[in-house]
Amino acid sequence: MENLLVKYVSKSLSLSVEEINAIEQEIVIRDFRKGTILLREGEVSTRCYFNLKGLVRQYYLVDGEEKTTAFFAEEQAVNSFESASQRIPSKHYLACVEDCTLVVGDLSTETDFLERFPRLEILVRMMVDQDFGKQQEMLASYIITSPEERYLKLLESPYNLIQRVPQYQLAGYLGITPESLSRIRKRILVK
Amino acid sequence: MENLLVKYVSKSLSLSVEEINAIEQEIVIRDFRKGTILLREGEVSTRCYFNLKGLVRQYYLVDGEEKTTAFFAEEQAVNSFESASQRIPSKHYLACVEDCTLVVGDLSTETDFLERFPRLEILVRMMVDQDFGKQQEMLASYIITSPEERYLKLLESPYNLIQRVPQYQLAGYLGITPESLSRIRKRILVK
Repeated sequence: MENLLVKYVSKSLSLSVEEINAIEQEIVIRDFRKGTILLREGEVSTRCYFNLKGLVRQYYLVDGEEKTTAFFAEEQAVNSFESASQRIPSKHYLACVEDCTLVVGDLSTETDFLERFPRLEILVRMMVDQDFGKQQEMLASYIITSPEERYLKLLESPYNLIQRVPQYQLAGYLGITPESLSRIRKRILVK
Repeated sequence: MENLLVKYVSKSLSLSVEEINAIEQEIVIRDFRKGTILLREGEVSTRCYFNLKGLVRQYYLVDGEEKTTAFFAEEQAVNSFESASQRIPSKHYLACVEDCTLVVGDLSTETDFLERFPRLEILVRMMVDQDFGKQQEMLASYIITSPEERYLKLLESPYNLIQRVPQYQLAGYLGITPESLSRIRKRILVK
């Protein structure tokens, strides 16, 4: 069976046989059922994930209510950097919105693995930098754009979140109520 | 004269003589006057900065109006990761709010330097992960908290932004109008 991670990495690097073998033999890829909680508030994150298939949601529990703050779709890294890097309890949850196939990285062995394969290390570093960049722009977009503009941007995104995600989660993610989201959708349909 | 970067790094690592010499001789530290623009919209970022003294502001120009989206104070990295990692034009500006003393990293030579000093590389990587974590939490905070809660958090922050930054910039950063900020301040004073 084709290894999805090898396939993904091969888009950026022409992998050597050693690199392919190492990825296939040492890197864990697991299937998770829809609804699986990958990380709970209060737990210290010891894993990093990379999404090969499916959709993962990040949310906070505020006064008993789930507040959706991020989605991680195909070919996106799923990390709780604050918890993992400082070894402090996570403030949020990570849960599978759909059945998922994820690379499961163990932070304690990741460094050793990457030291043995410098080209993969460079690739991972580049991915972290790019993710960081997206995160910075996303944060800025919450300040400089309106929820309607963010919704329009989601419509253009290749991940098709609007079809994949329940409306109340999408509304939270846009920073608005489900009623406001419904109004925005109507306005856009009219246009 | 004491090297501020050596002083900062020494808090985390007991540096060797070689490491101290390399930092002092190879890493550029520069003073910038208040008002200096470090990066303009449309430029590709080729530098990373680390703030040793002063305050840097990130803003977008939207319909001729400056929208403040981030501040970088002492001991914070100042990066435009999207532009730098993908080599695309920056969407935002970086400007010195105060006279600043900054480490100026050249992205093209940074990798070589860090390869020669693996302990410094680990430290830099750790700092990027921690910054990423803070960024994730900050993004979430724009979704799950109110502007008033974010203002209260700023009051607790060690950087004293509330005293250092003009009100209209602070308001933009909190995602509200200067009038709303003024109302929040009055409400808090009454409490």
